[in-house]
Amino acid sequence: MFSLNSNYLKLKAGYLFPEIARRVQAFLDTHPEAVTDLIRCGIGDVTEPLPLAAREAMHEAIEELGQPATFRGYGPEQGYDFLRKLITQHDYAARGVSIAEDEIFISDGSKCDGANILDILGTQNQIAVMDPVYPVYVDTNVMRGRSSDAREDGSYEGITYLECTPENAFVPEIPKEKVDIIYLCYPNNPTGTVASHAALSAWVEYARRHQSLILFDAAYEAFIQDPNIPHSIYEIPGARECAIELRSFSKKAGFTGVRCAFTVVPKELMGITSAGTQRSLHPFWLRRMTTSFNGVSYITQRGAAALYIPQGKAEVETLIHHYMGNATILRDALLASHHTVYGGTNAPYLWIKSPQGETSWQTFDRMLDHHHIVVTPGSGFGKAGEGYFRISAFNSRKKVLEVAQRLSHS
Amino acid sequence: MFSLNSNYLKLKAGYLFPEIARRVQAFLDTHPEAVTDLIRCGIGDVTEPLPLAAREAMHEAIEELGQPATFRGYGPEQGYDFLRKLITQHDYAARGVSIAEDEIFISDGSKCDGANILDILGTQNQIAVMDPVYPVYVDTNVMRGRSSDAREDGSYEGITYLECTPENAFVPEIPKEKVDIIYLCYPNNPTGTVASHAALSAWVEYARRHQSLILFDAAYEAFIQDPNIPHSIYEIPGARECAIELRSFSKKAGFTGVRCAFTVVPKELMGITSAGTQRSLHPFWLRRMTTSFNGVSYITQRGAAALYIPQGKAEVETLIHHYMGNATILRDALLASHHTVYGGTNAPYLWIKSPQGETSWQTFDRMLDHHHIVVTPGSGFGKAGEGYFRISAFNSRKKVLEVAQRLSHS
Repeated sequence: MFSLNSNYLKLKAGYLFPEIARRVQAFLDTHPEAVTDLIRCGIGDVTEPLPLAAREAMHEAIEELGQPATFRGYGPEQGYDFLRKLITQHDYAARGVSIAEDEIFISDGSKCDGANILDILGTQNQIAVMDPVYPVYVDTNVMRGRSSDAREDGSYEGITYLECTPENAFVPEIPKEKVDIIYLCYPNNPTGTVASHAALSAWVEYARRHQSLILFDAAYEAFIQDPNIPHSIYEIPGARECAIELRSFSKKAGFTGVRCAFTVVPKELMGITSAGTQRSLHPFWLRRMTTSFNGVSYITQRGAAALYIPQGKAEVETLIHHYMGNATILRDALLASHHTVYGGTNAPYLWIKSPQGETSWQTFDRMLDHHHIVVTPGSGFGKAGEGYFRISAFNSRKKVLEVAQRLSHS
Repeated sequence: MFSLNSNYLKLKAGYLFPEIARRVQAFLDTHPEAVTDLIRCGIGDVTEPLPLAAREAMHEAIEELGQPATFRGYGPEQGYDFLRKLITQHDYAARGVSIAEDEIFISDGSKCDGANILDILGTQNQIAVMDPVYPVYVDTNVMRGRSSDAREDGSYEGITYLECTPENAFVPEIPKEKVDIIYLCYPNNPTGTVASHAALSAWVEYARRHQSLILFDAAYEAFIQDPNIPHSIYEIPGARECAIELRSFSKKAGFTGVRCAFTVVPKELMGITSAGTQRSLHPFWLRRMTTSFNGVSYITQRGAAALYIPQGKAEVETLIHHYMGNATILRDALLASHHTVYGGTNAPYLWIKSPQGETSWQTFDRMLDHHHIVVTPGSGFGKAGEGYFRISAFNSRKKVLEVAQRLSHS
């Protein structure tokens, strides 16, 4: 009989969001009157419309595909040059970072990229993730056999968890042992915190010393307000030799339903083969993308390119201003109601300490019962998330003001 | 140092299309006058514009995303119900096949699906492919360690090649040994041939007996003209217990640059785990898709859905009529010029015997030199392709008539 990939059986069932849905439903069953005023602050999805510049460009692209003279079929699997070029100029050169066009790979999402990049890496690599962590980093490694079984607390044997706490400003300490692949995500989901130039430099130094690989998830870089915070790992000297960067148009431009992202793979980045020779990662990723992917919709790529023209840039700024305005309102309301709050100044997430003596789920239940507000329990993101909860700034202004109002009565 | 997936080093460099490009360039360098009348008949990409029904639906979808009340962010990773439902009705129920909506998984392409489905299958499975073969089936398995090294002729140790020749009507004979996973593609690329109900039944019977998995690539099913030829493997009784089907909107609706396809995974389909227990594949694929993918663009899915309304259906029929009209013209011209021709009656590809004593590449060179026509040498698709060449019907009518004209002077 043909065999299955049994690593999938190690996966703990997705627990966090189904359990949230279950508790919300149970609450609504007993409090049907709450259905009209329940506000969901747990969601990491955008709410505001797609920028006009992107819509106009996509309308035009559709019409191009409707005419014989301008029809386009298969595009380059790595993405169209027009978009790769804009990215190198606006996202990198403008910040003093030199990235070649052929080091940019356009994709349909960072979630896909984060999973797919693992295809080109050896199974024996020791993986390190931040705790709390975006669960997909862990699950995609478990699926590929880079862990042992799950523990009772949901973590996996064989994966290194790097604790992020107020004491280390939510940037993990450099580990004593050697790890091969390190996931870093800044601005961070779920904690909403950022990493300074110095903090990232320490990690780049570690990675170069141990010849480790940093997978740097910068999906939220556009939300950074502080001019001293790096937007890209490549702002750190030496990062081209040790880091892959993941970026996305999802959150900054309302593209979660449109699907466009990209990965940067510098040519200097070397790994080791089973024969013990060093090889550049770049041709491996190029081969992976050209053989197992067929490129992103031309229409979508034209929409993404429009985000770099002045009108598109201005609309992205308006979106960021909206969500970061939400974050400020939420942060002020939480501080006024005597909460200890992290994040929310350079990221669209707030990470809040549960009041003394409450677990994450107890806070969840209380917020639901008393305020009809759905938050995300921090323990759902890992052991170090226990005693915290996350509130998302992705919402309409009206709902955010209502949440602030309710919190002021707590 | 972090390690690379060294299986990638087993891959032979992509040879076929780069070598074609090299020879065409060398020819044009010495015959610059030919640049204006060179006709490329090697390409498997569509040429005709996107149907109006799809364009209109995509324009509307873009406007929905532009309004707060109708904005949509993340969609279901498995695809929107509106599209899954249309597929079950029009592609399956209409042909007497019962497929549940949640057995349909919408994706951004069959190439991606064909690669990704391998993630959920054990590494030890014995793979069998048709010869000649679409190279991606082989390469994606080599990348995952399901082969040994490449042989001199480009094939891989450890992969079973099933010869397709005129003697077996280009449907491979049932092998004597047991294989775990069998790729079947009908209508076939590159041979343009189809498989009868009886031929597919023999394979389903084999797969059920050995508890093997058939990966059935039906990307070209819409080109079938003969009412007796199955469009889906599920038209064969028992196939739900042994087959996954891959379908695509690329070729039938001009979607190669738009990107939409789907995979069917029936719930009855069982594989074996490392612990020796049988498990349904369906939850494995659901987990793979929800964890490593974020769904297809809402705009694209609305465009695909429009292909099922009467106007969209009529436009797809017009496209099929155009390409199959091309195929008929090419076939008639090739027969009139005394070629032995296969395919081209239920598929957009013609598979032609090289004249006595010529290799595939010799025919390629002669067609280029004498006729300024670029064909695809059959040997590029595998050992059993030697002595054949492929001509694609994906072209404008004008160019196809010109090709026919030139062939009549051969």
